[in-house]
Amino acid sequence: MLQNGNYEAILGRIPTYIAFLENYKDIYISATIIANELNYGEVMVRKDLAKISVGGRPKIGYTVEKLLNDLKTYMGYHHETRAVIVGMGRLGEALYHYKGFKPYHIKVVAAFDMHNKYDHMDQFESICKSNQIDIGIITVPKEHAQAVCDLMIKNQIKAIWNFAPVVLDVPKHIIVQNENMANSLAILTKLTNDRWHES
Amino acid sequence: MLQNGNYEAILGRIPTYIAFLENYKDIYISATIIANELNYGEVMVRKDLAKISVGGRPKIGYTVEKLLNDLKTYMGYHHETRAVIVGMGRLGEALYHYKGFKPYHIKVVAAFDMHNKYDHMDQFESICKSNQIDIGIITVPKEHAQAVCDLMIKNQIKAIWNFAPVVLDVPKHIIVQNENMANSLAILTKLTNDRWHES
Repeated sequence: MLQNGNYEAILGRIPTYIAFLENYKDIYISATIIANELNYGEVMVRKDLAKISVGGRPKIGYTVEKLLNDLKTYMGYHHETRAVIVGMGRLGEALYHYKGFKPYHIKVVAAFDMHNKYDHMDQFESICKSNQIDIGIITVPKEHAQAVCDLMIKNQIKAIWNFAPVVLDVPKHIIVQNENMANSLAILTKLTNDRWHES
Repeated sequence: MLQNGNYEAILGRIPTYIAFLENYKDIYISATIIANELNYGEVMVRKDLAKISVGGRPKIGYTVEKLLNDLKTYMGYHHETRAVIVGMGRLGEALYHYKGFKPYHIKVVAAFDMHNKYDHMDQFESICKSNQIDIGIITVPKEHAQAVCDLMIKNQIKAIWNFAPVVLDVPKHIIVQNENMANSLAILTKLTNDRWHES
């Protein structure tokens, strides 16, 4: 979960804009309509889009096709990102088979585990070398996460998507995104309690 | 992913503070140490903790036990939150078996699906009625998500954790947290490209 700073917050909304526009049937669209449909503030939507696309015209809005293309270009969907997963328990399997990555041109090239039908860790180095992997996804138990992370960095992986509940120790130039399912649910729980169980 | 606003950002950090403190062996701890260990800004950590716990003393810091207790109380970990999951594909299964919810006193009471060994949708109403469910977790394919959401709200569920890639239509008093795996990975990809492939 990326929650620090404004830039990440904007990036968090762009895939939602894209998904919405992909299903929008008209030729033109305004920031007002997008804001209403997505329950976002109108000023925020207007600012977000203005940062990325220059095609907006007063009263008419944006051409859907151009806006969609600008958003996708900005996010880098037009070139393929390659990832590997290490740790094929239930979560690893769910991510490996997840169909939602495809529209984003994210390809999970290999899935590693010690014990089963997936790619064996012995092949990690050679597969990374021949595929230019950008992103390493860590879904191993927390006691193995740092070792897997070190191995990924040693093999030129540039960013880590970490599902293990540990703080990884990485060099400054490596980007880590921590995804903690329990944290997300804990936040939702707190917001629910705020609204329903307190005055 | 909750990315709007400062309050949610703080809530996003608290579970990380808690996880860190649970493994911390000393009696006292300072905001400086926490900031260094978690790679957070020191001023931010200081402000976060001051909002939640009054025990901090200059030069000494906080008593770990009291700080931990204050953070947990703030997040509502001391009372049980009950959830149900609908949609037992790979992602639903992974969440259902996920051990990480336990420390947060979040209990997944039932798991529903049409086709397999889990609770059948026919029992949805009666299980919700007898268990006072707070949170509904939606992991069905997107074409069924709105119907499942409507059913949850009809059965007094107060908040929705939605993994289906759709914008759900809900009454104003219902809290929805959208969790889109592809969005998270798309953001990480963009940040990686920013750092490695552009000037």
